[in-house]
Amino acid sequence: MELGMIGLGRMGGNMAERLRKAGHTVIGFDRSPKSTRDVETLEALIQRLAPPRAIWVMVPAGPPTYETIDALAGLLEPGDVVVDGGNSRYTDDIRHADDLAKRDIGFVDCGVSGGVWGLTEGYALMCGGEPANVELLMPIFDALKPEGDTGFVHAGKVGAGHFAKMVHNGIEYGLMQAYAEGWELLETTELVTDVREVFRSWQTGTVIRSWLLDLAVRALDADEHLGELRGFAEDSGEGRWTVQAAIDHAVPLPVITAALFARFASRQDDSPSMKMIAALRNEFGGHAVTSAAGSTQKGADAPGADANGDRGRPDATAR
Amino acid sequence: MELGMIGLGRMGGNMAERLRKAGHTVIGFDRSPKSTRDVETLEALIQRLAPPRAIWVMVPAGPPTYETIDALAGLLEPGDVVVDGGNSRYTDDIRHADDLAKRDIGFVDCGVSGGVWGLTEGYALMCGGEPANVELLMPIFDALKPEGDTGFVHAGKVGAGHFAKMVHNGIEYGLMQAYAEGWELLETTELVTDVREVFRSWQTGTVIRSWLLDLAVRALDADEHLGELRGFAEDSGEGRWTVQAAIDHAVPLPVITAALFARFASRQDDSPSMKMIAALRNEFGGHAVTSAAGSTQKGADAPGADANGDRGRPDATAR
Repeated sequence: MELGMIGLGRMGGNMAERLRKAGHTVIGFDRSPKSTRDVETLEALIQRLAPPRAIWVMVPAGPPTYETIDALAGLLEPGDVVVDGGNSRYTDDIRHADDLAKRDIGFVDCGVSGGVWGLTEGYALMCGGEPANVELLMPIFDALKPEGDTGFVHAGKVGAGHFAKMVHNGIEYGLMQAYAEGWELLETTELVTDVREVFRSWQTGTVIRSWLLDLAVRALDADEHLGELRGFAEDSGEGRWTVQAAIDHAVPLPVITAALFARFASRQDDSPSMKMIAALRNEFGGHAVTSAAGSTQKGADAPGADANGDRGRPDATAR
Repeated sequence: MELGMIGLGRMGGNMAERLRKAGHTVIGFDRSPKSTRDVETLEALIQRLAPPRAIWVMVPAGPPTYETIDALAGLLEPGDVVVDGGNSRYTDDIRHADDLAKRDIGFVDCGVSGGVWGLTEGYALMCGGEPANVELLMPIFDALKPEGDTGFVHAGKVGAGHFAKMVHNGIEYGLMQAYAEGWELLETTELVTDVREVFRSWQTGTVIRSWLLDLAVRALDADEHLGELRGFAEDSGEGRWTVQAAIDHAVPLPVITAALFARFASRQDDSPSMKMIAALRNEFGGHAVTSAAGSTQKGADAPGADANGDRGRPDATAR
């Protein structure tokens, strides 16, 4: 079938390529003149497609997606369908669907997983929307998804696709943090002499074998002790939304929340809360503190104490 | 080669079967007369094996393993090798190796993963010990491990095998809790109408695909909302040892620790700490409390408040 693809970055560009290989006609548009776009304006994209049109929006979540869908609302005709395949928040979907519904334009939200591997392995898709709109797009979903029975779900009404993708990413935070903590414990203790080979051995027959574990082994093969990296991790929003949804519904997520907060902590050059802990320890116990310049200032009651200490032992000062 | 297997339970019995299928001679002993044992005493087992003997101990960790290895120390000869394949703590291995070394008996610790699936798929093995002892046992390890290049590691000296297996299990706690939290969030919120199909779709093409995810889908296929289960999880000790090792070496494990503590909380019929929280909220804010018998006692300052409330909303009482 014919599809308009808006956004030809790493995700949109590869998805267009996968769709064309499957025999679909994809007309691509991107704001950037440096992209591999087929048309130079949104208007030209709409003109090139025969109604009823299917338009896949694959631009960054937030304002770029809002602006694109607002513009499409003014250009498309009744019966056309818009898919938001970006990492939008599910609450945005419901607003977009309502806006487009006023003009009888359909809307489907579709969470997409697979990253740079999707081009060859297929993209896992989680979509939400009216059954008729999803049905219309099935040839596209079938071409994008991986081979086999799984890798696609119509999860519910509008918003359900991005909600499922959001929870997928929340789970991903917890999984990544669990492997990372285990790796740090093995690297820090000295009993296991080849941590990379332990990780490699886990790829077959263990309870913890997974695609993420395979990726960890790839990373360790490139840089055995990850010495080339700083221990710093960004987040793309979906972990936060997962925790916010949990708070809205009073669902305890201790592990997913701890994984998200560990990333926040990783982005601090210095920890304000640990400054406060150090100040309070000094106040009540005379424990040594470390100045911002790095020198240790001995606590009043514990002249021999070293606040930096050995990583393996608590400091020796009295309470 | 020839191997003595002590302990013919679900693990030891299946491992003996897998070894025999691979052409090895296994003489089995178990304390229980109901087992499929080949000999009725430990002494008879030793007599049936030609020196240098290899003996695999596959009995519960702790006292049963201590007693078995102590008995073997008195029966075996210099040059024999004992493998502890149970879920022993790595600190026990070092003691056992030292005890046996006094009699020139070798010791190898071997963490085994694979559970009931190991018989057909193979057991992932993580072992620790002197290279010569590990080399002697390689035909056994090769027959037990899964096919392919991975699934076996000689992780270091004595203790390293069980240490690696311990960390494997710690990671497993975090992974399981991450999937479980995501599932609870999807089940509690109503946007996604078929949570089981979302989990099933994740099996291909997603970042979170794994063997544990496959098992979760199996469990949901048998009982879609897990209505037949109570939300209660035991632990087998290795999660605790992982956290204890992290504490000994000052390694932060927020996710693995939270996953372990979530299991502890699941085993409480009533939460003492939440009794204290409720008591304190009532003391400073007059918030409603719920008696042990289940009736709501209104807080003095908030006559309309309901301490149970809607799961989705904070209660309405003032601070």
